[in-house]
Amino acid sequence: MTLRAVIDHLLYRWLQVENLCQRERHADHNRQTFDAVLDTCQRIAHDKFAPYNRLIDTQEPRFDGERVVLPAATHEAHRAYVESGMLAAAQTYEMGGMQLPFTVESAANAFFGCASVSMGAHMLTVGNANLLMAHGTPMQQAVFAAHEFNGRWAGTMCLSEPQAGSSLSDIVTRAEPDGPDHEQDPLGPRYRLRGHKMWISNGDHELTENIVHLVLAKIPDSQGQLVPGTRGISLFIVPKFLVDIRGQLQERNDVALAGLNHKCGWRGTVNTLLNFGEGRYPVRGQAGAIGYRVGEVGEGLRCMFHMMNEARIGVGMAATMLGMAGYLASLDYARQRPQGRLPGPGGKDPQSPMVRIIEHADVRRMLLIQKAYAEGALALELYCARLVDECHTGSEPQRQQAQQLLEVLTPIAKSWPSEWCLEANSLAIQVHGGYGYTRDFPVEQYWRDNRLNMIHEGTHGIQAQDLLGRKVRMQGGQVLQALGERLMRTVNQAKNQPGWIEQADALSQSWSELLATTHEAGLQPDMGLPQAVPYLQAFGHTVLAWIWLDVALTADTEGAGDQGRRAACRFFFAHELPKAKTWLASVSLGDRTAVDLPEEAF
Amino acid sequence: MTLRAVIDHLLYRWLQVENLCQRERHADHNRQTFDAVLDTCQRIAHDKFAPYNRLIDTQEPRFDGERVVLPAATHEAHRAYVESGMLAAAQTYEMGGMQLPFTVESAANAFFGCASVSMGAHMLTVGNANLLMAHGTPMQQAVFAAHEFNGRWAGTMCLSEPQAGSSLSDIVTRAEPDGPDHEQDPLGPRYRLRGHKMWISNGDHELTENIVHLVLAKIPDSQGQLVPGTRGISLFIVPKFLVDIRGQLQERNDVALAGLNHKCGWRGTVNTLLNFGEGRYPVRGQAGAIGYRVGEVGEGLRCMFHMMNEARIGVGMAATMLGMAGYLASLDYARQRPQGRLPGPGGKDPQSPMVRIIEHADVRRMLLIQKAYAEGALALELYCARLVDECHTGSEPQRQQAQQLLEVLTPIAKSWPSEWCLEANSLAIQVHGGYGYTRDFPVEQYWRDNRLNMIHEGTHGIQAQDLLGRKVRMQGGQVLQALGERLMRTVNQAKNQPGWIEQADALSQSWSELLATTHEAGLQPDMGLPQAVPYLQAFGHTVLAWIWLDVALTADTEGAGDQGRRAACRFFFAHELPKAKTWLASVSLGDRTAVDLPEEAF
Repeated sequence: MTLRAVIDHLLYRWLQVENLCQRERHADHNRQTFDAVLDTCQRIAHDKFAPYNRLIDTQEPRFDGERVVLPAATHEAHRAYVESGMLAAAQTYEMGGMQLPFTVESAANAFFGCASVSMGAHMLTVGNANLLMAHGTPMQQAVFAAHEFNGRWAGTMCLSEPQAGSSLSDIVTRAEPDGPDHEQDPLGPRYRLRGHKMWISNGDHELTENIVHLVLAKIPDSQGQLVPGTRGISLFIVPKFLVDIRGQLQERNDVALAGLNHKCGWRGTVNTLLNFGEGRYPVRGQAGAIGYRVGEVGEGLRCMFHMMNEARIGVGMAATMLGMAGYLASLDYARQRPQGRLPGPGGKDPQSPMVRIIEHADVRRMLLIQKAYAEGALALELYCARLVDECHTGSEPQRQQAQQLLEVLTPIAKSWPSEWCLEANSLAIQVHGGYGYTRDFPVEQYWRDNRLNMIHEGTHGIQAQDLLGRKVRMQGGQVLQALGERLMRTVNQAKNQPGWIEQADALSQSWSELLATTHEAGLQPDMGLPQAVPYLQAFGHTVLAWIWLDVALTADTEGAGDQGRRAACRFFFAHELPKAKTWLASVSLGDRTAVDLPEEAF
Repeated sequence: MTLRAVIDHLLYRWLQVENLCQRERHADHNRQTFDAVLDTCQRIAHDKFAPYNRLIDTQEPRFDGERVVLPAATHEAHRAYVESGMLAAAQTYEMGGMQLPFTVESAANAFFGCASVSMGAHMLTVGNANLLMAHGTPMQQAVFAAHEFNGRWAGTMCLSEPQAGSSLSDIVTRAEPDGPDHEQDPLGPRYRLRGHKMWISNGDHELTENIVHLVLAKIPDSQGQLVPGTRGISLFIVPKFLVDIRGQLQERNDVALAGLNHKCGWRGTVNTLLNFGEGRYPVRGQAGAIGYRVGEVGEGLRCMFHMMNEARIGVGMAATMLGMAGYLASLDYARQRPQGRLPGPGGKDPQSPMVRIIEHADVRRMLLIQKAYAEGALALELYCARLVDECHTGSEPQRQQAQQLLEVLTPIAKSWPSEWCLEANSLAIQVHGGYGYTRDFPVEQYWRDNRLNMIHEGTHGIQAQDLLGRKVRMQGGQVLQALGERLMRTVNQAKNQPGWIEQADALSQSWSELLATTHEAGLQPDMGLPQAVPYLQAFGHTVLAWIWLDVALTADTEGAGDQGRRAACRFFFAHELPKAKTWLASVSLGDRTAVDLPEEAF
């Protein structure tokens, strides 16, 4: 099994991405051009990213008083990535892109997640520019997005503040109109921003000549008060260096690095606390960071959700590829390392040679779980990417269905790999034994890196609330129904294909139980909240069972790859899907023990 | 809730350790003397260990070419621990001890695990000396054990080799008789050892003037061949510096540091690769480390199990106290940190002040799981310690029953906290959000430190095989039956106490299901192996449900502490025990998917 073989199967046999070439936007493409992109990314990831993954862990970003210092390898990797053209891969020819389907772009980027998840700044840069393509003015697109797609500038998203992490309605960064002519600036309505932003990935660095911050802030009313809640939030472009309409750099904007966060992992990405408008770099003699509004006043969070949804799937993909990296590393180790003997006749003879640990039942179990988690998660992420392509270039009914599926699948695509590919990484350590716990092997770093993914871009709890509190009720339940219909299509196909009837029944049953619990939770809205996470877990396992069954139906050859897919699917149904029932039972109890306990009794 | 309050409840109300004072060995003790020991340890842990827990993580042990350098804080902490007399606490007055019950000694040591799990070297030193008290000659006890108990020397256990980790039968360290008079040495039959030992905690340092290595090695037969398998293994005392019979240091022995292991966590303990007898420090002009045999030839592993069993419970306690440390840290954080608002009428008003996160249902859920895991695990570990006291000072029937319970509970006491208190640590990070992933808060280190515990002293897989392959069949099933009887005693008590009938039934049912699956697995011995770990997990959760119910029956006041205990028990039965059924179903499937999969299909 190689990662490339997994990706090839998912793209070409399962998701049939070649069909996308029949659409006008992708008409110049075919399997050869897709393969060329995959080849290029695989090569750059192998040459410029993977060899330095430990280096970026040990040589953490630091601030030398003037600038953020990253290892030379990070600069070289970034340069190679920019030169590949991948930043603009999915964009139109006019924007300098190659009109690649998003599914293929995602698959190609997966190689970098596997090689070194935290190196470079491309995911947020592309997400930032994509937001501007959706909500920015043509000038904002031509100046800011275009320079992000060509790699001259990088992008960030600035949401959290030290006092407002998950609770964005409590942000207090202020944006005040910058002078009487502020509405006339060609780059957009011009404001002065003042406030502190926390957890900003790539918030300061020298990888690019400029950094485009997308910043949530509140515009005070006529009494100088901030509008409470999220409806007071607007969105602003705040570049590190001001620019003219041709994209030429001008003076430094009033954005200052206030500190670096020192993390448990994910150390290839600098993570910062930024001060906006504190006067360190006054513009025209005055404190306040210059920002250009994107979209309407009070529409900031809605606009930002464009980037957040993309980032959530990006986080899911990152978690997935860490899971995959750990699986591949432990599979390789298990094939090499001799230890112990097999039970049974003659096996325990201490004079017989030791066997490689891949021959031990428990090691095989740990490998197959990892495979089921990581390959299943990759299928889910690429399925979501395929839905994005439907939204971009599908027919209206396709677009509508894809949009519904994306709404309900996004919290799963974000949370499921974050939880289970982390567990996979723990098993990868376990396969290595003591060696896995040392820094001489890569798996402990994968595990540390992966722990971030249940936190950033909306914690597990936030995803669970989004799913149970919002998504399953959205459009009067039509969003949930769309998923049910898609899932039942797989069930029906499986019933007609020998060997999968048992799994088809199990999936159908699990979905019914999920619906029943959803209904119960809907009747008692309060009941769901203490158990939103178990609900999310049950939902995720059911979705993954569906994804695996759907993949397995296309794995019908006698080749080793297809044997492995069928085995992973059967294994998931045998040992993982039954857990969904247990979580649902937890939800159904409506247990208030944790909620009602007096604080002093904890 | 304070750790001390938890320990007080478990010791005095649940385990009734004061009753031990009726036994001759502990006749001088009473609650006041026990409390004094707990006070002392709590104070030293607070003053000398806790403040330096981050320091020892960042200032990893290093070798300067001559010696292993540990932070000054480690030396001070070690000194304070030695001065407390805790190394010999459970020993007789003649050995310089205080004849403290082992249960109280364990509880007192728990404070250090919570403050800084990896600082110092006391656990292995005491375990090493205890082994000598069980299997050494009076002279070996007087020279080696005595100087370990008084803190002048430290101890290690040297089992693994680079090519032989879990598979001890494959060790190749050789021990050859040292001269014709080798049987006459007063310190024990004298040998020359040659070989490499891997993963040796505290293998070299300057905390003490000498280090007593207990080393497994094989004595070649008359043809110079090593006896294959574990029956060829003998045990040797190999001091770093040779000593005379009064314990005076003499020349350096031929034991050399070959390298340090660089770990993901647990960095307060130096972990080493040692070369024995390579000639770096020749003794009497000759290469070969001098070692004194302990016990009979070929009995090495049996003797070593005395220390390994103690170490396994020690690992369980370490994992437990990391879980407890994370729980306390996240509880404290949740009580301070304001974020968001509660759902329901008025709660979502963005103008209302934010609430502290301990008011959020999902945070409460994460706290109560941690409490259920950590306090439950602590109860289990102290219960095992109480069994050790029964073995030492109980009547013959008490001793026999305690021995049986210890056999079957040891793999659980080792594995359950290693898995679930690690999960608790992950939840402690989650409660902290992004802050928990930074090194500014302690929880990410607890999580990293705890990951070792599923590996050292026998991996999870080894514990599972020990349980399913050996312990449940031991003595024709009597060992398992002893646990069943003890557990049913709790069930019957619970049935007579209002409020616990539902839990009593659930536990009784879970135990029946476990027995049924054990029986199935016994009929098809081959079947169990791929699913030994799920079996271990089901067994562990059932044992913990029993422990929690037994504890809850003594938590019958209206005080906050008892309310918390009852809530944790109910929570465990509602949301955790049902998982046992799912794991048992996994086992019962007898699924061979992982075992039969061709290697190339992974």
